[in-house]
Amino acid sequence: MKLRATIWGENVHETTNQNVSDIYPEGMHSQIAKMVGAEGDIETRTATLQQKEHGLTDEVLKNTDVLLWWGHAAHGDVKDEIVERVMRRVWQGMGLIVLHSGHFSKIFKRLMGTPCALKWREAGERERIWVVNPSHPIAKGLPQYFELENEEMYGEPFSVPEPMETVFISWYQGGEVFRSGLTYKRGAGKIFYFQPGHETYPTYYDENIGIVLRNSVRWAFNENATFADPGDAPNVPTGEAPEKIEERGLKLHKDGEAGLR
Amino acid sequence: MKLRATIWGENVHETTNQNVSDIYPEGMHSQIAKMVGAEGDIETRTATLQQKEHGLTDEVLKNTDVLLWWGHAAHGDVKDEIVERVMRRVWQGMGLIVLHSGHFSKIFKRLMGTPCALKWREAGERERIWVVNPSHPIAKGLPQYFELENEEMYGEPFSVPEPMETVFISWYQGGEVFRSGLTYKRGAGKIFYFQPGHETYPTYYDENIGIVLRNSVRWAFNENATFADPGDAPNVPTGEAPEKIEERGLKLHKDGEAGLR
Amino acid sequence: MKLRATIWGENVHETTNQNVSDIYPEGMHSQIAKMVGAEGDIETRTATLQQKEHGLTDEVLKNTDVLLWWGHAAHGDVKDEIVERVMRRVWQGMGLIVLHSGHFSKIFKRLMGTPCALKWREAGERERIWVVNPSHPIAKGLPQYFELENEEMYGEPFSVPEPMETVFISWYQGGEVFRSGLTYKRGAGKIFYFQPGHETYPTYYDENIGIVLRNSVRWAFNENATFADPGDAPNVPTGEAPEKIEERGLKLHKDGEAGLR
Amino acid sequence: MKLRATIWGENVHETTNQNVSDIYPEGMHSQIAKMVGAEGDIETRTATLQQKEHGLTDEVLKNTDVLLWWGHAAHGDVKDEIVERVMRRVWQGMGLIVLHSGHFSKIFKRLMGTPCALKWREAGERERIWVVNPSHPIAKGLPQYFELENEEMYGEPFSVPEPMETVFISWYQGGEVFRSGLTYKRGAGKIFYFQPGHETYPTYYDENIGIVLRNSVRWAFNENATFADPGDAPNVPTGEAPEKIEERGLKLHKDGEAGLR
Repeated sequence: MKLRATIWGENVHETTNQNVSDIYPEGMHSQIAKMVGAEGDIETRTATLQQKEHGLTDEVLKNTDVLLWWGHAAHGDVKDEIVERVMRRVWQGMGLIVLHSGHFSKIFKRLMGTPCALKWREAGERERIWVVNPSHPIAKGLPQYFELENEEMYGEPFSVPEPMETVFISWYQGGEVFRSGLTYKRGAGKIFYFQPGHETYPTYYDENIGIVLRNSVRWAFNENATFADPGDAPNVPTGEAPEKIEERGLKLHKDGEAGLR
Repeated sequence: MKLRATIWGENVHETTNQNVSDIYPEGMHSQIAKMVGAEGDIETRTATLQQKEHGLTDEVLKNTDVLLWWGHAAHGDVKDEIVERVMRRVWQGMGLIVLHSGHFSKIFKRLMGTPCALKWREAGERERIWVVNPSHPIAKGLPQYFELENEEMYGEPFSVPEPMETVFISWYQGGEVFRSGLTYKRGAGKIFYFQPGHETYPTYYDENIGIVLRNSVRWAFNENATFADPGDAPNVPTGEAPEKIEERGLKLHKDGEAGLR
Repeated sequence: MKLRATIWGENVHETTNQNVSDIYPEGMHSQIAKMVGAEGDIETRTATLQQKEHGLTDEVLKNTDVLLWWGHAAHGDVKDEIVERVMRRVWQGMGLIVLHSGHFSKIFKRLMGTPCALKWREAGERERIWVVNPSHPIAKGLPQYFELENEEMYGEPFSVPEPMETVFISWYQGGEVFRSGLTYKRGAGKIFYFQPGHETYPTYYDENIGIVLRNSVRWAFNENATFADPGDAPNVPTGEAPEKIEERGLKLHKDGEAGLR
Repeated sequence: MKLRATIWGENVHETTNQNVSDIYPEGMHSQIAKMVGAEGDIETRTATLQQKEHGLTDEVLKNTDVLLWWGHAAHGDVKDEIVERVMRRVWQGMGLIVLHSGHFSKIFKRLMGTPCALKWREAGERERIWVVNPSHPIAKGLPQYFELENEEMYGEPFSVPEPMETVFISWYQGGEVFRSGLTYKRGAGKIFYFQPGHETYPTYYDENIGIVLRNSVRWAFNENATFADPGDAPNVPTGEAPEKIEERGLKLHKDGEAGLR
């Protein structure tokens, strides 16, 4: 069975900025999808901001094992209702790969519970991505480091929670460092943040970037995605307690009543 | 210098339910404040849902080192704008102690990024709180376990992120277990979730509960609460890079321009 | 390709205690191996304390993806040299499943760097194992909890490092709790500690225990087990630095010289 | 009450290498002690490899709140018995600050359970230490980054367990990165690893280094250092179980008997 990845692209700069459309004439999402699908084990589809429900209908999400997210100019245009929907699917076990400027997307900030801020500089400088966790599945097949001759600098402090694991740390020519590959878990959903991918550089044509994208989709797939309703808070009536007990003391609720929220 | 704690109480069941008002005639927040302030090193004030801005004005929050939060029946009535305000203060370094049914408060769910759901049963059963991290500052002065003869059962799975440290785990007479003391960090803010505190039982008169409340306020105080604006994402112009570099490649932004969000 | 698991059994009480040999006439290791191999995707072999090199030759370890460890009476008889060898293999990416009284094995204590102590009671009481992380691969196929009618009580505090993830927490009839399923990573090796398995009870015939054993072997397998020599600390000569630099200042070492250890 | 810090120095290169003794004529440990004690709230003493029991008698350790460790050339000469003694004190709550080449010390490797290996280059290159966790107590009073004009490069992958928190990450002129400030907890003991400090450079005269050393001692002090015997595994006789239970099933041990180890 193939993994099913959906690549969500904001698709704004590709249509409004000549530099960007020269590099990604079919949109960044299309090129990312090409990279993700290149080895045949991952089935890809794309969705964009401009589509109905931003292309992320219940049906699409239900059939998505891992969602990749690239946005930058229009984070504010993503409807809160869709953000909630994506968040619930992550809690149920859909993987989420957040790319580059997606650090400021509504969905990433909601899942992290922090500002997700950072320093930045657009100078086309060299970025060297170091593998700090060489045995992590996301690093499989990579050399000890790889370089992108032109990337946007993202600098620490990156105001995210302490990650489950740090996979990559980047060195920048201009003197900064950045934790460029971080893993998290929220509910049943595995999350990976990956720094590279500024729209004015051909990052998503780089071979090592392709390796990371594919590895991260495979890693983020959770075959034990079991939560029916992640927000459900079931009452256990006294008569169904695992150990026999008698009710005592004062009460607010009747047996089996829904809890307050 | 004294620590400054603000105890926020929803103050609904205390005025609408006889059982609750019999136990907490001046409101739960007042009794919690009494416990927190009992050793003289913590200055307390209270705030409630019914007050203007829920009692959590900019001025109050600016003068709060640690906020304690008890809510249950009216999570939905807390204004989103106040939740955002509290969240930003946490990011700047205000401590937050979330009590009992506060697991479903907007502020806790926003900071965790997860459903924060659990099982529950209101049977007045015995809860035994085990110290699993005896050298943690929050456990200082506690015996290896303590009991509450009547508490509401909260059962696993508790859908929160993996904590920084697990301090307490509870045993329930009816057969369940619960991670009843968990620590987190979000931005500069330290967060502690503590399970006991159902409104129909006299939990906040218990001596060991008082120890935990005071210890947790002391622990959550961050004297290095430095973030001026936690959401700020400063551009570093090429000329101010720590290492001398030349700009190259294509660009979206002009130097010093505010970034997209 | 099948996963290759080696089950290491101390094999002492099985030959010296009638109660134990009645339950496990072929040794606990044989019964554990039967459970691990029951679904056909994992190839098993066994090794015991009494064999040459405790059955853990370089050859055996080289052909082991995941090692399961059961010991109790004779931790001190395991040769330090073999412990070192197993530890290096874990660092290179071999998975390790530590069972029950293995919490006090040399290998587990060495990998944790803590005392790994706990409370205990042998009263044949009921243990209820709660799944606190239902989407974890090790919990796949399990109900929300399962019971062992007779088990040894292990009680908190369990002096281990904060785990990567807590998968199970146990409730005991006598009133204690225990973090009974914990994950760790050391080098490239994934480690799972699992509490049940006292030798005077038929725990390793239980169906749910079998599910956990198989799931944990599958989880602990690291297909990206890449470390050639995990203790290698390579010098990077100045001329081979990723960025061109000139040597300056005082030195201890000549270029390419081995470092001090 | 003052904190009591003991600075342990290997004191080998200071007496055998002219470059080193020119910079640290009284030994590195003396200069580190001077920095640690500079603000008057920390009382310091020193101990060296050459002293009886390496200067780390039971008496000294009993009166040490935080131990700082600098070693490089003679890790192998530190007696295993003293390493065990220090490790037990850490478990009981003594803080430990491991400096620079101490990454390969026996005590650090024992507490981590990993190889603790890294890349290195002695080229006197520039190191820029970035604060990635600006609200951490160890970063108090520091600018967003500081530089050491000449340091030894330590490069990733650093084979240590995932830390509790990453406080610093270093950028090197030659192109590498390194997680240069990491926190851990083992038993009741807080541990901080800090990268700078090569003996041929005047690192321990740097003002920012002094800030980090003092902050880390204050952070590592655990006033709740309670473990009497961290390796104790007490039996809880059936008659003393928190809940009344009857003994059943087969047994290995008599009531109150010491457990097997």
